[in-house]
Amino acid sequence: MAQKPSIPKGTRDFGPLEMARRNYIFDTIRSVFSLYGYRQIETPSMENLSTLMGKYGEEGDKLLFKILNSGDFTRSVSTQVYEEATAPQLAARFCEKGLRYDLTVPFARYVVQHRDELQLPFKRYQIQPVWRADRPQRGRYREFYQCDADIVGSDSLLNEVELLLIADEVFRRFGIRVAIKLNNRKILSGIAEVIGAAERIVDITVAIDKLDKIGLEGVNAELAAAGLSAEQVESLQPIICLSGTNAEKLADIRKVLAGSETGMLGCQEVETVLNALEGETANTIELDLTLARGLNYYTGCIVEVKALDAEMGSISGGGRYDNLTGIFGMPGLSGVGISFGADRIYDVLEQLVLYPADTETGVQLLFINFGEAEAAHCLKLARQTRAAGIATEVYPDTAKMKKQMSYANARQIPFVALVGENEMRDGVVTLKNMTTGEQQTLGIEEAIAAIRA
Amino acid sequence: MAQKPSIPKGTRDFGPLEMARRNYIFDTIRSVFSLYGYRQIETPSMENLSTLMGKYGEEGDKLLFKILNSGDFTRSVSTQVYEEATAPQLAARFCEKGLRYDLTVPFARYVVQHRDELQLPFKRYQIQPVWRADRPQRGRYREFYQCDADIVGSDSLLNEVELLLIADEVFRRFGIRVAIKLNNRKILSGIAEVIGAAERIVDITVAIDKLDKIGLEGVNAELAAAGLSAEQVESLQPIICLSGTNAEKLADIRKVLAGSETGMLGCQEVETVLNALEGETANTIELDLTLARGLNYYTGCIVEVKALDAEMGSISGGGRYDNLTGIFGMPGLSGVGISFGADRIYDVLEQLVLYPADTETGVQLLFINFGEAEAAHCLKLARQTRAAGIATEVYPDTAKMKKQMSYANARQIPFVALVGENEMRDGVVTLKNMTTGEQQTLGIEEAIAAIRA
Repeated sequence: MAQKPSIPKGTRDFGPLEMARRNYIFDTIRSVFSLYGYRQIETPSMENLSTLMGKYGEEGDKLLFKILNSGDFTRSVSTQVYEEATAPQLAARFCEKGLRYDLTVPFARYVVQHRDELQLPFKRYQIQPVWRADRPQRGRYREFYQCDADIVGSDSLLNEVELLLIADEVFRRFGIRVAIKLNNRKILSGIAEVIGAAERIVDITVAIDKLDKIGLEGVNAELAAAGLSAEQVESLQPIICLSGTNAEKLADIRKVLAGSETGMLGCQEVETVLNALEGETANTIELDLTLARGLNYYTGCIVEVKALDAEMGSISGGGRYDNLTGIFGMPGLSGVGISFGADRIYDVLEQLVLYPADTETGVQLLFINFGEAEAAHCLKLARQTRAAGIATEVYPDTAKMKKQMSYANARQIPFVALVGENEMRDGVVTLKNMTTGEQQTLGIEEAIAAIRA
Repeated sequence: MAQKPSIPKGTRDFGPLEMARRNYIFDTIRSVFSLYGYRQIETPSMENLSTLMGKYGEEGDKLLFKILNSGDFTRSVSTQVYEEATAPQLAARFCEKGLRYDLTVPFARYVVQHRDELQLPFKRYQIQPVWRADRPQRGRYREFYQCDADIVGSDSLLNEVELLLIADEVFRRFGIRVAIKLNNRKILSGIAEVIGAAERIVDITVAIDKLDKIGLEGVNAELAAAGLSAEQVESLQPIICLSGTNAEKLADIRKVLAGSETGMLGCQEVETVLNALEGETANTIELDLTLARGLNYYTGCIVEVKALDAEMGSISGGGRYDNLTGIFGMPGLSGVGISFGADRIYDVLEQLVLYPADTETGVQLLFINFGEAEAAHCLKLARQTRAAGIATEVYPDTAKMKKQMSYANARQIPFVALVGENEMRDGVVTLKNMTTGEQQTLGIEEAIAAIRA
């Protein structure tokens, strides 16, 4: 019996219209990256599991797609080992490779592996799919694209400034109004330090990060559950609830952090970045001390972008990581990057009806097929229209006129050329404008001019 | 200890120059596909193994990369089953998904799955990586790109004609001189029929296909080994060694095939296609009866393209398949397609030094960083040059002049802007042309004009 075809859950097919829109997104991001001097690289879909494991936390390890070794993959695993080992242990024996989980770890691996060929500072962008064995749900897929720009080999804050300009410019081009939220991991560390809970920094950032989702009471409950005393939780309140202009927030937080060198450095970094961007962006940049971002490798500025007019999680984010290449044997190389979530941007553009009308520049001209001799003649005319840059089709079959016209309509082809016996004899085409219904009999050069107009 | 980073064998990293060249290849192919009315789709990297298995022959099944099920993948496999089952049987229990092996089977699956949304005939193109667990060797990778155009829902030979025009145009744009070889599976079937070995058609095509590699004697030995009698092998000789013009070859083969309806139909199809293309192509199209192509789903015209001036296997190929969607429950839908091998085309372009000089349009302007105040000023100037479409960098660190200039040289940036105290005061930039060494002091608008010139 024939199989009923389907695709794995959490994956998607993209049809022509979706592809045109996705390409619009990728092209827009790509051209801004290029304008700022970032150059494209690509890395393999598969990485050695030794490259990927342990880089995304325990949860991340579970979400890696692992690829079964080819051939007799069971060779080195005896029945006894099979009996006794856990699934993750067996997976490690059966699989050497996994699908990439993000673009940052492969980039760090790339930099270390190609260190001798690279000119530092190295600015790269990368637009490729990543895979995560997450539970699929609305807006969360198992295969999705990331669009990343990173620079390594420079710890100048100018890089942060430029990456924020890139974010601003990308969303300006899309026409999406956004809030760009900025924070600094050093400020968060400083806070943990001054309330006497430096070793709780991870728990604190994780809890504060949830303010949007679970509210202030929820955050406080989580902080308490993480082992903070009532006094410590209390002393965090002014920070969590900080308000006012960026300058006011900075002034307030500096009072709290006066005793922490790290914290004060974080404030200084944020201030430098904000000052450089003053008046330079279309969107507002907001200091948000509750922004934490999950990934533990961040060490300095962190940023997240949200759409103002659509319900959607963050559509872009990034930050400074001081030692990502260290895990691959190349310490002391600071990096900073920003990532755009193409799939979420897709949904926002659709929700806000922001796609340009001509996103899919499809076929402009269809030659109707009246028979073998006519079709052969049309093929030569199509050669001329194509040479003039006009995307052209010759209907392949000698089908009924009505069928061919409804094909043209369904494909939204704006011009149809009718070339029958008479037109062949007279060396002309009857050109029909499908929008106005108007018909003209023209030489092929005139027809080309009419289509271009 | 730090890991020494590497990537799985048979996979590759692509640096900025390689990416620029690859994009040149993809963009060229893409624009020809679009010109002929083909529209882009993408399918997931992972397909259900039930979609992939059994479509590429026994050898193909072995070359599929399989993805380990998430979570406790061993659950349904007892120790006893593990003990007794073969590796392929266990793989089928441990894995539900695999990486796509080509673009044709996923396309057939796509057409059947989305049949209600599609306007037939449906013309699509697809440019995506495929994965094969082949033994890696020169020119053969485990991850590589295919660029396919296919049309389903029309059995008109006009489609074959247009796909050959596409192949001709693509290689004309690349500047690669090619031989386009044409054959028809029906002719091969007719030959097998008239020598009384219809059931040996697969063996015969496989053997004849190797003529280039193993020579006439080798082919004859293989035919004999496949069970053909000396007489049958003898009667194949005029066909294998056929020479002359396409018309002469057709006339000769028609004499041999007079008794085979299928064979004569194949001749008719080839003749129609050749006549339609007469004088229309930049490259020669050659009827080659030894062309067989491995894949069993072809049923009509088959085509293969080879570079004339480079040692390389086929760089493009395709053909007509009459029932590929049948395996997914949608019989009676004929398709025909062509595929370009981007990786081999890459090597040919490199070998023949055919990349356009400006393939990588990199950064055009670098602002030297003289200090914090100067950099902040340059950032504003960079805003103007970028708004004018000039890809611009501001060197992020206040490094020694020599280091910054050698960065500009290594990156091949054609213009450097020096903006120190004096230039800031006077509202100008000192623009250095890195090719000529010439320096000019200009207003920013003049500098933009100079860079554009």
